[in-house]
Amino acid sequence: MIIPFHVQQMLSRVRGLFQTEQDAARIAPDTSPVSSLRPVRSASPKSLERYWAKLGAGSAAKDALADANSCADPAIYSANIENLIGTVKVPVGVLGPLRINGVNAKGDFNVPLATTEAALVASYARGAYAATKAGGVSTAVLYEGVLRSPAFVFEGLLQAGQFVDWVVNNIDALKAAAEATTRHGKLVSLEPAIDTNIVFLLCRYTTGDAAGQNMVTIATHALCEHAAAQCPIPIRNWYVEGNYSGDKKASSLGTLTGRGRKVSASVVLPKAVVEKALRTSVAEMLDYGRVANLGALLSGQLGAQAHYANGLAALYIATGQDAACVAESAVGFTRMEARGEDLFCSVTMPNILVGTVGGGTGLPSQQAGLSVLGLAGAGNGAALAEVAAALCLCGEISIVAAMAAGHFTDAHASLARHR
Amino acid sequence: MIIPFHVQQMLSRVRGLFQTEQDAARIAPDTSPVSSLRPVRSASPKSLERYWAKLGAGSAAKDALADANSCADPAIYSANIENLIGTVKVPVGVLGPLRINGVNAKGDFNVPLATTEAALVASYARGAYAATKAGGVSTAVLYEGVLRSPAFVFEGLLQAGQFVDWVVNNIDALKAAAEATTRHGKLVSLEPAIDTNIVFLLCRYTTGDAAGQNMVTIATHALCEHAAAQCPIPIRNWYVEGNYSGDKKASSLGTLTGRGRKVSASVVLPKAVVEKALRTSVAEMLDYGRVANLGALLSGQLGAQAHYANGLAALYIATGQDAACVAESAVGFTRMEARGEDLFCSVTMPNILVGTVGGGTGLPSQQAGLSVLGLAGAGNGAALAEVAAALCLCGEISIVAAMAAGHFTDAHASLARHR
Amino acid sequence: MIIPFHVQQMLSRVRGLFQTEQDAARIAPDTSPVSSLRPVRSASPKSLERYWAKLGAGSAAKDALADANSCADPAIYSANIENLIGTVKVPVGVLGPLRINGVNAKGDFNVPLATTEAALVASYARGAYAATKAGGVSTAVLYEGVLRSPAFVFEGLLQAGQFVDWVVNNIDALKAAAEATTRHGKLVSLEPAIDTNIVFLLCRYTTGDAAGQNMVTIATHALCEHAAAQCPIPIRNWYVEGNYSGDKKASSLGTLTGRGRKVSASVVLPKAVVEKALRTSVAEMLDYGRVANLGALLSGQLGAQAHYANGLAALYIATGQDAACVAESAVGFTRMEARGEDLFCSVTMPNILVGTVGGGTGLPSQQAGLSVLGLAGAGNGAALAEVAAALCLCGEISIVAAMAAGHFTDAHASLARHR
Amino acid sequence: MIIPFHVQQMLSRVRGLFQTEQDAARIAPDTSPVSSLRPVRSASPKSLERYWAKLGAGSAAKDALADANSCADPAIYSANIENLIGTVKVPVGVLGPLRINGVNAKGDFNVPLATTEAALVASYARGAYAATKAGGVSTAVLYEGVLRSPAFVFEGLLQAGQFVDWVVNNIDALKAAAEATTRHGKLVSLEPAIDTNIVFLLCRYTTGDAAGQNMVTIATHALCEHAAAQCPIPIRNWYVEGNYSGDKKASSLGTLTGRGRKVSASVVLPKAVVEKALRTSVAEMLDYGRVANLGALLSGQLGAQAHYANGLAALYIATGQDAACVAESAVGFTRMEARGEDLFCSVTMPNILVGTVGGGTGLPSQQAGLSVLGLAGAGNGAALAEVAAALCLCGEISIVAAMAAGHFTDAHASLARHR
Repeated sequence: MIIPFHVQQMLSRVRGLFQTEQDAARIAPDTSPVSSLRPVRSASPKSLERYWAKLGAGSAAKDALADANSCADPAIYSANIENLIGTVKVPVGVLGPLRINGVNAKGDFNVPLATTEAALVASYARGAYAATKAGGVSTAVLYEGVLRSPAFVFEGLLQAGQFVDWVVNNIDALKAAAEATTRHGKLVSLEPAIDTNIVFLLCRYTTGDAAGQNMVTIATHALCEHAAAQCPIPIRNWYVEGNYSGDKKASSLGTLTGRGRKVSASVVLPKAVVEKALRTSVAEMLDYGRVANLGALLSGQLGAQAHYANGLAALYIATGQDAACVAESAVGFTRMEARGEDLFCSVTMPNILVGTVGGGTGLPSQQAGLSVLGLAGAGNGAALAEVAAALCLCGEISIVAAMAAGHFTDAHASLARHR
Repeated sequence: MIIPFHVQQMLSRVRGLFQTEQDAARIAPDTSPVSSLRPVRSASPKSLERYWAKLGAGSAAKDALADANSCADPAIYSANIENLIGTVKVPVGVLGPLRINGVNAKGDFNVPLATTEAALVASYARGAYAATKAGGVSTAVLYEGVLRSPAFVFEGLLQAGQFVDWVVNNIDALKAAAEATTRHGKLVSLEPAIDTNIVFLLCRYTTGDAAGQNMVTIATHALCEHAAAQCPIPIRNWYVEGNYSGDKKASSLGTLTGRGRKVSASVVLPKAVVEKALRTSVAEMLDYGRVANLGALLSGQLGAQAHYANGLAALYIATGQDAACVAESAVGFTRMEARGEDLFCSVTMPNILVGTVGGGTGLPSQQAGLSVLGLAGAGNGAALAEVAAALCLCGEISIVAAMAAGHFTDAHASLARHR
Repeated sequence: MIIPFHVQQMLSRVRGLFQTEQDAARIAPDTSPVSSLRPVRSASPKSLERYWAKLGAGSAAKDALADANSCADPAIYSANIENLIGTVKVPVGVLGPLRINGVNAKGDFNVPLATTEAALVASYARGAYAATKAGGVSTAVLYEGVLRSPAFVFEGLLQAGQFVDWVVNNIDALKAAAEATTRHGKLVSLEPAIDTNIVFLLCRYTTGDAAGQNMVTIATHALCEHAAAQCPIPIRNWYVEGNYSGDKKASSLGTLTGRGRKVSASVVLPKAVVEKALRTSVAEMLDYGRVANLGALLSGQLGAQAHYANGLAALYIATGQDAACVAESAVGFTRMEARGEDLFCSVTMPNILVGTVGGGTGLPSQQAGLSVLGLAGAGNGAALAEVAAALCLCGEISIVAAMAAGHFTDAHASLARHR
Repeated sequence: MIIPFHVQQMLSRVRGLFQTEQDAARIAPDTSPVSSLRPVRSASPKSLERYWAKLGAGSAAKDALADANSCADPAIYSANIENLIGTVKVPVGVLGPLRINGVNAKGDFNVPLATTEAALVASYARGAYAATKAGGVSTAVLYEGVLRSPAFVFEGLLQAGQFVDWVVNNIDALKAAAEATTRHGKLVSLEPAIDTNIVFLLCRYTTGDAAGQNMVTIATHALCEHAAAQCPIPIRNWYVEGNYSGDKKASSLGTLTGRGRKVSASVVLPKAVVEKALRTSVAEMLDYGRVANLGALLSGQLGAQAHYANGLAALYIATGQDAACVAESAVGFTRMEARGEDLFCSVTMPNILVGTVGGGTGLPSQQAGLSVLGLAGAGNGAALAEVAAALCLCGEISIVAAMAAGHFTDAHASLARHR
């Protein structure tokens, strides 16, 4: 049979639902009336009560989300969320100390990780232990800049070209307009990309210690308004983001040019560390590393790595970062190579988006996560990015060792055993 | 100057750190002794105390993470995390009802979203309001199957070919070996991919109502062990995962073949709904949609969409899913097309990895999130996947409308105003 | 200056052209009358004369293209081209013998290569010499099937699902309709891909010894007409190719699933061969191989290889293949690994599109190219695919050796010396 | 059965070959002696005779390749190929006039296309006819620069960073070293990309009217040698090309930054032209255009287009370009949009690599191809790039119209009818 079995199986499962016209109506629009929840910007104990009265989800659910502890003063979340009904408690484990010898992060770090996936913390902790035994992870921010890419639409190619010319000639005023909106953001590069009658301006900003996504939106909006007001070439439409910057998604552009901070982290693991701490050998890790690299290539990964997403999501949630940025941050390049008898390991991650101020970093438990790291507040943004990369390196070391030694399945089976 | 300005700027900032040899030593290995935190599998109040005594992060941090409420019985987290030090409280907002006319999800849903990013809930709520006004979102799971891709290494091409032949002839026994490890997992497809001497077996499983990542690892491990024990062709090495399945990363393979559940969700928004609920017009949304599609293509996105990651991360955290899977789930295809005077909108998302049992879904506040949705427990896995896709459709509608109307920046600036 | 220098430089070059409105008109439409060349399907000496009379390109051009030798009987080209004005003479070099130990190709092959790029033949010849010294290249066709992907558009998700159901239930008749159009084509797999209301049917055909692109178009057209005529679900539109099959372009789908023939070719080069024939060392080749693999990854190649396109284009032109298929064929995976003291080298190429019958293979000089190979006519399609992969392996070996030894530039500078 | 049918079918076909050990030996190395063809750099009638005496391919093959006309003076090919045995005659068809209103190309062009694929010339001619009727194609070179990306390997991150610092401080000397090797090449941009201990320098050159691939290799070699000689930081290895520039392959980097010349070409086709010249309607073309765009996205194309490769390969061969560059040139972005009742069509192609001097452009029949175009010799490189893009636009228009109207299959079946 030339149609794949699993397709047939899926179809036979679904088919029943659509035998009759009545069934088919199931997925048609239904315009019977509905009463929407009322939006609430600044939460209060009362607004929570009102929501729960309407949700009909039971008091256990209410107790679990809207507990007295985290919701004593719901207003503390007002700059972070709308329509608040409580908080979800994500368990946080710690690993450490992870020694980092970085251009920005320097010292021994305890790293908080928020996850519900068994084995994650244990696995990263093992990698951190090995890396620290080896003298720690060397790190450097190589590049930085959050991208925003407004789009301008014109009649045709001629006007698009004239607009780019105007932009080049008015770049100082445009930069000033953008930077007038922010104390910390600096426009450090602007590069036009033309597709016939549409011009994308790839704007790169440094954003101080904040992740800076809102900062660059507001600055770019001002830049666009300045252009729209001043430029003599007729603009048909403009958009503050032309979906070209790679914001919150895996893209080749982000991977190539960097978005946020680009960090390399590396360590040379001595043979003895590999054998004792990781219970495998340099040769076995290299053998698997080659297969994993091939698997990455054959499957068309953006980048080539094993599971940055695990460490990043856990760190981002624990420290008040934007977890959606995992989609763009979890991309990069892991390398493992022989150095004599030892093992050189590195990661290069072009899209780390983190901050130590702004966003969710000021909320109590998230701030506490940063405090565990010793990186709360201003002055620590670049260091946090280096911690993120060093952490991912530890995760790569650990999973490659586990795969090489055949321990991967056992660890997961055993640590999730209580379920 | 032919070297980009931002490169020069970055260098001059870093340079100071490496002026002298002493500075340069900063990133060299440092083998001074360090005492690692002791690993703890089953947390207890005592183990938390011991950790906090060592962390030196201050009592405010401890109070925020290890609060009495969420840590009264730390053992409840033992199958979900190691080295527990507390919980991070992620604020949860709600939107709804979102009407879904799905093959699996059918009804009006209140959707909990955990995030620290202002405007996210409000924006998705607006899209949900419009979609519901239009009669709701039609959804269907089109395909399902979690992939795992073990790799087998041989002497050369000949042995690799002979192995594939052996696999085909012994497929029933291999399937039995895999399925003996699980009540819910079924191996529904197995496809070999050969690269000279290395064979990847792309195994696709249905996993019932669980996301199923551990389930497929354990099943595949058994399959591999069976092959290794029974197959007469000499196997040099095998690995339960050859980094080919797209697990927790954006890959072309996942995008093409699906991993987890593939769902389409669509709605036709009447002209009037676009104008009243979204304060823009069909034509303006189509205009921006074309630019956004071009931006996606030019930047080399995997897929073409605006911000699935926002909705997915918020839903995954609120309902106990694996947030790291956002890296693979936040990929797909958004379409907007004219239908007469109205607007057809759809998303197709090939890699939704969710479950209503297993993983973090049983923890109190996560279970509460599922209860708000009305989807806690067995029997709801496919429905939750359809909710995820319907939610992302709402997010796409809202952001496209905001960009089209020029409201995007204002909404973000205003909702994050309290910071 | 934050705008890149080369952008500014480009603009200042172009600006002059648009200083005045008059200049700007240069790129505006110009509707002054024009008289088109008359189309000619079956060329004759007369039709050539008529064209040349209109072209106004001088008699030297005419003599060079429409020479008496190749254009004595222009009608021989009638099934291959329209509007004939002559032939371009592409110089052909030969390398060999290249020893191939293949499932399909077996023996010592002289390989004709048509190119105008100095050093190409010499470089590939060097690789072939080393591979042959090592005992020859092992090859196998791993997979085969030319893809065609018709698209069907429906009202919505429901109808799309019902159509797929209909296809599955009528697959035998659809297969029969397709295969009725061809003696050699067989439909060996059909897989649906749904995006809301659009269904792509990924049809895979074996095509005997022909490359088979027209064969699968005609067969698929018949399949679609059968579906359109018989299927009770209303089809809004259908297209014989939905631009999904990867035909003549680099795509992830082609790279993953194969299009045409997928071939692996490998050789283990003894240390001594590397040192004598390639004037470098195994270690140096591995060192460069790692860098080249990283370069491929960082630049977002589809696949990871150095220059398959060179060998493929030269072989395709010399043997009457469709040179446009280089766009999809020049994708794949080159590996180099230590095997003790020796060097394992392999290529896996998923998209080789070649035939020994049909297309340009029957034209006199193209047929001669196949004769030099010993692969003219029926029965040789798979062997030619293995030759293509073995050839590309030789090219990879040679360029990696040249890069590793620092000879790359010199070879090119010296061989193009006469210009 | 969970293993795909076509995999099983392939295996059963191959299995026979490996039933016995004897058969299995077929793909093992064979070290029996072989006598290689002797290399010949400067061909002569005698060297051709010697080759043919050894090839054993029959006199018909010899007559077809080594005809008196094209091989009267084999030495004319000496700077273009080694081991010459004759020329392959690729039939050339013409289309035109194609009206181009370009920044560089201005006028009505007759375009020679070398191909053996029936329907190609007819199809492109139809598109050209429609575009010319509409007033012609507007074109502009938007960007230019051939990339070369040498790689430098260091001990670690520190040295890599110090090297980049050195490069920035010595950029003038490096630029001078590069440009000293060439009259026409200019280094217009240099951007470092660091991956831990490896530095790629992305060098962008303008190359005058030559395609310039050798020119940039030689210049970059000089730049590297200067760095290796002068830079105080110890360099472990350097390579003139780190496989990062996208040379002769489809890569995200090339697609994003451009390699060679980036050109946009566009035309607005009036409703009447679509209906009369293309026998379809604007709405039907837009309908198919949307499906084709979706197909491109779903299949993971680099870019989104239909068949640039066809026109490019035919033009490149007919005018002495490097046909292997089709692999990188056949990438880009086709757009079709409504403009009132009319149809806006455009292509943007970032990687057009053509020249009117150097390479194969000076050979008699290739020079004749350029003469038919009116673009032989210096001063015409940018114009030729615009012709290439305008040609591809015509091909896109024609194939989209044929697909939309359902004529695609018939045209191919009928024009290849004589086979």
